Amino acid sequence: MSITVFGDSISGNCLKVKWTAERIGLPYRWVETDILKGESRTPDFLARNPAGQVPLIILEDGRAIAQSNAIILYLAEGSDLIPKDSYARAKMFEWLFWEQYSHEPYVAVARFQMAYMGKAAADLDPKIVERGKAALARLERALQDGPFLVGDDLTLADIALVAYTRVAHEGGFDLTDYPEVQAWIGRVESALGIV
Amino acid sequence: MSITVFGDSISGNCLKVKWTAERIGLPYRWVETDILKGESRTPDFLARNPAGQVPLIILEDGRAIAQSNAIILYLAEGSDLIPKDSYARAKMFEWLFWEQYSHEPYVAVARFQMAYMGKAAADLDPKIVERGKAALARLERALQDGPFLVGDDLTLADIALVAYTRVAHEGGFDLTDYPEVQAWIGRVESALGIV
Repeated sequence: MSITVFGDSISGNCLKVKWTAERIGLPYRWVETDILKGESRTPDFLARNPAGQVPLIILEDGRAIAQSNAIILYLAEGSDLIPKDSYARAKMFEWLFWEQYSHEPYVAVARFQMAYMGKAAADLDPKIVERGKAALARLERALQDGPFLVGDDLTLADIALVAYTRVAHEGGFDLTDYPEVQAWIGRVESALGIV
Repeated sequence: MSITVFGDSISGNCLKVKWTAERIGLPYRWVETDILKGESRTPDFLARNPAGQVPLIILEDGRAIAQSNAIILYLAEGSDLIPKDSYARAKMFEWLFWEQYSHEPYVAVARFQMAYMGKAAADLDPKIVERGKAALARLERALQDGPFLVGDDLTLADIALVAYTRVAHEGGFDLTDYPEVQAWIGRVESALGIV
């Protein structure tokens, strides 16, 4: 099967899909979709995904799946990126939902505003900075217990969390404050073959 | 097995866990945990869940699972609340992640601020109101296609989304603007045996 991925290469949410597909050896066609130019808000795109968001994948039969973490769960089904043990799988899900609720809205949004909207660090909403730091601190504590977020092996939790954590400095966060996180970023990048 | 659920009865996120357990006939012990009194931020609670959030479940062997949607996925595994078909399951996941990213932060937060923090509707952040309405409008469109969010049967997507949608009026949203949503709330409440 060959799927089509609508994604913007500046978006960590989209890169999750690319990395997962490559990790499991799944062929895909990438359609670069420029968020900043509004390409995820055109009538054509909205017909495919009413939420007007990338990433979006289109299966060979034309059916669509949205939401980065829903997409990588679909693609990785049956692979070693999803733990077989039900408790370990639940912990992976914990991280996936936490990422979307408590990490991405702060770490990714700060980076988007600074790196792509031209905002200065001093002009960021202090709540975004504070909650982004809290998210990074929680990752730092969790990574004191093991090399990856769930058990001893790479899972979707690492792919989802590394996407914006590895570029957190572009949002004004100082990753040298989080040495366990920095070491983990290196491990995940190495496992995924990205630099 | 008998699990323990730490939950606050005013929280839709916690009620998801209660409803799911009852729907599948799973015995549980409910430990009322008052968010407004800070009971999810005590040292004892933080040792169980570093995120300081309810709901939290404790399994019989003492291990914990956090994040409402991760918990209901764990509890409902193998039940008819999770579609067997992989595409339908992916659509369910889409809704679960969308709920936490695009619905709860607006619909639930408006309700919390008005019903529990004493804020007037006019003092809500206009962005919260606008995005909450957009979330309800998206549900309205989706429910024109079928009785439940995924296929013809109740799934975890309905449980997760109904939790705060059914009390959206407490956050100043007028549900009579969304007749499909209102009818769906009735169907889900009826299926779950709640009033």
